[in-house]
Amino acid sequence: MQRRSEGERPLRIAVSGAGADTCDPHLEQLGEEVGALLAENGAIVICGGLGGVMEGVARGAASRGGISVGFLPGSDADAANPYITLPIASGLGEARNVLVARSGDALIAIGGEWGTLSEVSLAMKIGVPVVLLAPARTGDLGLPVAASPREAVETALRSARGR
Amino acid sequence: MQRRSEGERPLRIAVSGAGADTCDPHLEQLGEEVGALLAENGAIVICGGLGGVMEGVARGAASRGGISVGFLPGSDADAANPYITLPIASGLGEARNVLVARSGDALIAIGGEWGTLSEVSLAMKIGVPVVLLAPARTGDLGLPVAASPREAVETALRSARGR
Amino acid sequence: MQRRSEGERPLRIAVSGAGADTCDPHLEQLGEEVGALLAENGAIVICGGLGGVMEGVARGAASRGGISVGFLPGSDADAANPYITLPIASGLGEARNVLVARSGDALIAIGGEWGTLSEVSLAMKIGVPVVLLAPARTGDLGLPVAASPREAVETALRSARGR
Amino acid sequence: MQRRSEGERPLRIAVSGAGADTCDPHLEQLGEEVGALLAENGAIVICGGLGGVMEGVARGAASRGGISVGFLPGSDADAANPYITLPIASGLGEARNVLVARSGDALIAIGGEWGTLSEVSLAMKIGVPVVLLAPARTGDLGLPVAASPREAVETALRSARGR
Repeated sequence: MQRRSEGERPLRIAVSGAGADTCDPHLEQLGEEVGALLAENGAIVICGGLGGVMEGVARGAASRGGISVGFLPGSDADAANPYITLPIASGLGEARNVLVARSGDALIAIGGEWGTLSEVSLAMKIGVPVVLLAPARTGDLGLPVAASPREAVETALRSARGR
Repeated sequence: MQRRSEGERPLRIAVSGAGADTCDPHLEQLGEEVGALLAENGAIVICGGLGGVMEGVARGAASRGGISVGFLPGSDADAANPYITLPIASGLGEARNVLVARSGDALIAIGGEWGTLSEVSLAMKIGVPVVLLAPARTGDLGLPVAASPREAVETALRSARGR
Repeated sequence: MQRRSEGERPLRIAVSGAGADTCDPHLEQLGEEVGALLAENGAIVICGGLGGVMEGVARGAASRGGISVGFLPGSDADAANPYITLPIASGLGEARNVLVARSGDALIAIGGEWGTLSEVSLAMKIGVPVVLLAPARTGDLGLPVAASPREAVETALRSARGR
Repeated sequence: MQRRSEGERPLRIAVSGAGADTCDPHLEQLGEEVGALLAENGAIVICGGLGGVMEGVARGAASRGGISVGFLPGSDADAANPYITLPIASGLGEARNVLVARSGDALIAIGGEWGTLSEVSLAMKIGVPVVLLAPARTGDLGLPVAASPREAVETALRSARGR
């Protein structure tokens, strides 16, 4: 039977990005590549569980047999996108962003409007390392920017292991 | 690639019970049997991630290759017991009890002092079906009481499927 | 200018009880007497901000020029009953019960179904003293039961000062 | 007895800014002026309850006999600065930022590092109007910047009334 200290568990990487209503298809595609690479590297994907980038990253993880957790703002697990393995209907509203920001070993933010910016700033406040991909509102914050999904995933995994 | 509506996902069953400081070893043993039976039935186990009943149920799940989620009150994933697959360091304090109460398709409460009673009453308020095993403070609430771990798991799975 | 340590601030007393949909008018009346007595004693009233007992207690406080805080589950301050001085639209859903349970120096529970029971058990878990008035589901918990609104308020104020 | 619809209650204005450890004394002074002006205009001040800008704004409000609410991250009301009228020991950790961002009718952000940026972005996501004063990390967001405490307060009150 598996008995593990925290250092022996799979890494958990949070991915933040716009929902379906404001998401550029290109960003969802980046999310899918990020999700696939995270799953290939054995990481559990954590996200907000809805559409857009969140659906992209869960679809990417699912395409490689990976696990994704979706922290939903509402109280209905049915609101999760169909690629989420483990929907958590938090019922906490926007406070679920704190769960996304806090419960990963690192955070990858893709594009991003206000919700993503809130998760990035909460992660920085809490001390979770952040890497940006295709930054939008997050672009002037002096945070590391990755040139590709692969670089974003490599940076996040390295930062996560270094915590 | 797996694409699933909520009805096709694995059931998620929450298990509530005393932490290590107040937990009778017999209750932890009941937790282990419940965790093992849930994993055998393909359910994901949700709990508070700490010791006592929470450790028992996670150990039981791990003994059958199952997955357990631990919603920790604090901000350090290292506080999770060593059998938890996915620790969520919520940082929400006692408000993490709401996540335990809400995010399962049913709740099994084993023994139980004030924390367990809070999760049982939150689940009932929210509409998550509850079954008790070896009830303590929860014994006068008119809720179904199971005679064994097996009966508790069967009742919980049946209620969860009926939601 | 007023500069105060915590011990010099007005006491904050939380009052818990059924909402409008399940509330016996007699309980709302008890709430009104409790709210009036708390305000007469200079305490700030904390409650869940909605109808039933919550409206009674806020109305009682307002009748004596007192202050009441209402922690609403939703995101709309308009949902507060008209006697609440300070509505807090928490958006946290049932997790707002933790704010009610935690932020008073003592908790008076009037009648009470599942929501009230959750606040009582959270308060006991956290270490906030509790007194019951006209207990319902809370009646078998071994907690102090007051015979009248006056006794409930006196007990709560005494417990709050003794923390 | 006062009976009020939401539109007849005092406005609630949230003020966000650095805590004591990272706060420039000039920003705390700006906070004090903002707090005083809000109280003169009859608004209730909402903040995070700790030091730095949060203490400045509460001190300013107290200097004019105003009311301030402090949403503390921890579980001890004693952690509030001595000018806070109503400390709320949320125990929610950084998730208390959501309460600051959501429960005002408008948000004034003074200076500001990651915590402030999180409250600004949560407010924008939720739809609470924001005005900046002496912006730091928040400066590139395209949000209205006030030239003085007076202008910040006037803008916030106007936006709050317009909601």
